[in-house]
Amino acid sequence: MKLYVIRHGIAQEPEPGQPDSQRVLTKEGYKKTRAVAQRLAALGVQVEAILTSPYLRASQTAVICHEAGLGPMPVVHEALQPGGDWQQWVTWWQEWRDQGGGAVALVGHQPDLGHWVERLVWGEVRDKLVLKKAGVALLELPEQGSPVGSAQLLWLLPPKVLAD
Amino acid sequence: MKLYVIRHGIAQEPEPGQPDSQRVLTKEGYKKTRAVAQRLAALGVQVEAILTSPYLRASQTAVICHEAGLGPMPVVHEALQPGGDWQQWVTWWQEWRDQGGGAVALVGHQPDLGHWVERLVWGEVRDKLVLKKAGVALLELPEQGSPVGSAQLLWLLPPKVLAD
Repeated sequence: MKLYVIRHGIAQEPEPGQPDSQRVLTKEGYKKTRAVAQRLAALGVQVEAILTSPYLRASQTAVICHEAGLGPMPVVHEALQPGGDWQQWVTWWQEWRDQGGGAVALVGHQPDLGHWVERLVWGEVRDKLVLKKAGVALLELPEQGSPVGSAQLLWLLPPKVLAD
Repeated sequence: MKLYVIRHGIAQEPEPGQPDSQRVLTKEGYKKTRAVAQRLAALGVQVEAILTSPYLRASQTAVICHEAGLGPMPVVHEALQPGGDWQQWVTWWQEWRDQGGGAVALVGHQPDLGHWVERLVWGEVRDKLVLKKAGVALLELPEQGSPVGSAQLLWLLPPKVLAD
């Protein structure tokens, strides 16, 4: 049960009065994120669901992943917004697995995603993982039981390693 | 204070009566390891010391890293042999840092290296990191105080991502 955890690409600085959720990828962020997604596809990455934060810079990143062939059209998952409800996602994932779902990709924000990875791998947050913009982590989640504290960490990739 | 943790490449199966320490890299292992080391050099990786396990498959890997331009000729460090004394290395590293030493690469074996990374990042071993042969982890160690439980994890790279 593979889980790819992908941070959104480089986004524009907020304009005065603009909600944080409306910030979009910069031209460079778009280009780099697309190169990363294409490299992941070339490495054989394939998922059955792409869940994304509703924030624009994340959903744009998720669409880029879809366009590169990594998986189906993204689905917005509220738990992936900054400060979202982690437990809500755990419940979703366990149902997904129990219904026969396969590999999943999550697209969201720091520090949340790093904390989620730590919860899955070590069962608690220590704020020790550096997940760069357009960076990717890969976890192997268990076939049975709670995924919390029982995942293995296989990848922690900065974008420059994927697309230099 | 960067620390690169590198697992040896693919080695030959042991021949009857051959000590484990004498196994050498296969032709494929040599080629793949060299490609990884060259990619690391292209990414700008530079260290001031390469410490290696005395086992041949590790010291060959360390020499390949040197030949690719990553750092000076490797130095054998007994703590890096399988089941080696982790505390001995911590003492070495703290002295190295206190004398003004910079980035270091370690070349050794699993599961030891994964456990060392976990000790540095989380302070304890949980056996949760997958470090492939010729795979690389990168940690940022603190400028002061004990490195145990106070490092950040920046990379966990399988070789296929570095040299496909």
